[in-house]
Amino acid sequence: MKAEIISIGTELLLGQILNSNTHWLSNELNKLGIDCYYHTTVGDNPSRIKDIIKAAIERSDLIITTGGLGPTPDDLTVETLAEYFNEEMILCTESLDHIKEFFRKRNRQMVPSNEKQALYPKTASILPNPVGTAPGIIWDVSPYTESETSIYIMTFPGVPSEMKAMWLETAQPFLLQQSSSHLTIKELKFFGIGESNLAEQVIEHLNSPNPTVAPLAGKNECRLRITAKSESPQKNIQMIEDMENQIREKVGEYIYGINDDTLESVTTQLLKDQNLTIAVAESCTGGLISQRLTSLPGSSKFFMGGVTAYSNKSKEILLDISSEILQAYGAVSSQVAEAMAQNIQKIHNTNIGVGITGIAGPTSDNTQKPIGLVYVSICIEDSIYTHEFNFGSQKRDSITWQTSQECLNLIRKLIQTK
Amino acid sequence: MKAEIISIGTELLLGQILNSNTHWLSNELNKLGIDCYYHTTVGDNPSRIKDIIKAAIERSDLIITTGGLGPTPDDLTVETLAEYFNEEMILCTESLDHIKEFFRKRNRQMVPSNEKQALYPKTASILPNPVGTAPGIIWDVSPYTESETSIYIMTFPGVPSEMKAMWLETAQPFLLQQSSSHLTIKELKFFGIGESNLAEQVIEHLNSPNPTVAPLAGKNECRLRITAKSESPQKNIQMIEDMENQIREKVGEYIYGINDDTLESVTTQLLKDQNLTIAVAESCTGGLISQRLTSLPGSSKFFMGGVTAYSNKSKEILLDISSEILQAYGAVSSQVAEAMAQNIQKIHNTNIGVGITGIAGPTSDNTQKPIGLVYVSICIEDSIYTHEFNFGSQKRDSITWQTSQECLNLIRKLIQTK
Repeated sequence: MKAEIISIGTELLLGQILNSNTHWLSNELNKLGIDCYYHTTVGDNPSRIKDIIKAAIERSDLIITTGGLGPTPDDLTVETLAEYFNEEMILCTESLDHIKEFFRKRNRQMVPSNEKQALYPKTASILPNPVGTAPGIIWDVSPYTESETSIYIMTFPGVPSEMKAMWLETAQPFLLQQSSSHLTIKELKFFGIGESNLAEQVIEHLNSPNPTVAPLAGKNECRLRITAKSESPQKNIQMIEDMENQIREKVGEYIYGINDDTLESVTTQLLKDQNLTIAVAESCTGGLISQRLTSLPGSSKFFMGGVTAYSNKSKEILLDISSEILQAYGAVSSQVAEAMAQNIQKIHNTNIGVGITGIAGPTSDNTQKPIGLVYVSICIEDSIYTHEFNFGSQKRDSITWQTSQECLNLIRKLIQTK
Repeated sequence: MKAEIISIGTELLLGQILNSNTHWLSNELNKLGIDCYYHTTVGDNPSRIKDIIKAAIERSDLIITTGGLGPTPDDLTVETLAEYFNEEMILCTESLDHIKEFFRKRNRQMVPSNEKQALYPKTASILPNPVGTAPGIIWDVSPYTESETSIYIMTFPGVPSEMKAMWLETAQPFLLQQSSSHLTIKELKFFGIGESNLAEQVIEHLNSPNPTVAPLAGKNECRLRITAKSESPQKNIQMIEDMENQIREKVGEYIYGINDDTLESVTTQLLKDQNLTIAVAESCTGGLISQRLTSLPGSSKFFMGGVTAYSNKSKEILLDISSEILQAYGAVSSQVAEAMAQNIQKIHNTNIGVGITGIAGPTSDNTQKPIGLVYVSICIEDSIYTHEFNFGSQKRDSITWQTSQECLNLIRKLIQTK
């Protein structure tokens, strides 16, 4: 199957909205093993929409549109399609009932223009919308062309939550049925190794036809996506396991999780599973470590408290760090990081204490230490581990983000090897 | 001018990268008053790139490409363009020197494939790249077509920072020169009023032809963009000022800043300007307030410290909140928020102290208080102001973000009315 995605909406051309729908759908098509050759965005303009449809049906056999299904006069996708193929529009009573029910449930007035949303081309099928008013269509338009094989057009609303629900509930199963094969995906998530280095280490697998292995870059981390396709899910799982084992043998030490895992989700899950508590004293990261450790539900079980000790006074009063240490070594030093970790652990009586001090820039402190110098110290029970990082003269938010990544990863590794 | 944007890169079609370049460029074109009618994305495939170029030169007179300027064999944009128009490629010695210098400065080895980046079609001009190796081109291809007026193709790299620098330094001034008119833009930034409500209040201005006024939505805030176009920048400034005054008369109370201002930038600038210091004690926001207050350079001047008091113990030990208050009113109460604000102010001896406690969900605390209930208390010198918010049962990160917006806005308003 050759697919293309057409986004319809003047607001996209004006740069008012970022086209995240196309990104999401492309990724979904890729997971299904369907090649996507074009993305096009066009405004709410029937003549330009028709030009794009004309080009699309000549080169693709799966055409996905998003946008233009709403009730207002500039929502023109379905009627423009019907016009282009010269097909009559009829009313779908089920869709109309669904729309009426949608408004009734919300105690909102249905306006006549909403009725328009229940119209569809006579030979198309309805693609139900479980979360909004506008249904989409699945339409094999090959009878209107010279093609001997099917050419499917699928329409989706522009609202991402509705589009995604419709894709996952109806469109994706429909497409899988067409191919009668099953697809299984597993992503391995890496920290501490760059994308190009990772690709080099597993280069022999990157050309594997099935399962395929694709390296993907992230924000200061990267991942490998393993995709297996066969007649059975069980076979896929086996194929993925074999490939995963080969990859783990080579670069397993850098794998911190799979699929939707993040460094904070993996680390906080370990804290929960092992009934460990943690407290954080941070300086240059300004609260980011606390924020990431508390970003997921249930964090009050293990996160006892944090201090953002930005001033020496704060370090002295809240963390009980002596002015002698601060003066002798400077606030950005391994000695102060260690004292921060030890004292915040003691104050909260936690299993783990974290201390972070560094220079996020763009100016240094009065000691002329280099921007990007960061000390991360972690106390776990009676042991203490301190690391020095030199992130160089990068942007402030890049230095704080990398520090938080390294810190979460260190906590994770220490718990795992405890 | 009719513009279109062509993004070149298979990784976009695979859904590996979000196409933020097109979003950014569309917004820039919109600011210049240039209509953009199409976005297209195509892979690193010469034949498909040529198909798209063919369609583009028939319908547009400004064609902007991004991607495909790198040194690897799949970076094909410029040579495919030269091939399509059957034009010779020649070496730009200045570009080559720039590339050599780029590598020399970074102590990195230049590989032969980088030389390719200095080739360009004989009749094109170079669009310099101040921050990377790959230059772009500005090429009037009308002599190769039947068009009697110019058709410009501009090529940019896919790396956003390079693309943006090249746009702002060379392409944008070039385009402004073409039109011989000047464009001036000012954005007003709003907090505390929804986009549709704002649009309704200023509806009479939304149809103004010059300056134009456009409402734009943001993350829990919104903005109005005023764009004036005339033969002189002075006239533009006057037109914008007149419009701004009319808007401020109606909805001025919700305006917190202009252009690139954010609630944190405006609030922290006020703290700096008035030599005020601040300390923060937060619970449900988990460090987000501290993180936003310290996200910009120079924050150590005013931000003395923060406490993320997630547990009662943390509130007792670090913030000196009595267990009596915690037991009598519960951790999520106006009394505790006030004690947090007062005590963190006292501990750091700051002008301002902030206390935040609430339930970010998805589960409540054992008091059965509703999810989304948040108390924000602010001490400024000897006065204290406490606000109760009910954000309802939204997502955890949405509740914490809204709390941080409200909190920054309250600090801003208190300083301004002090």
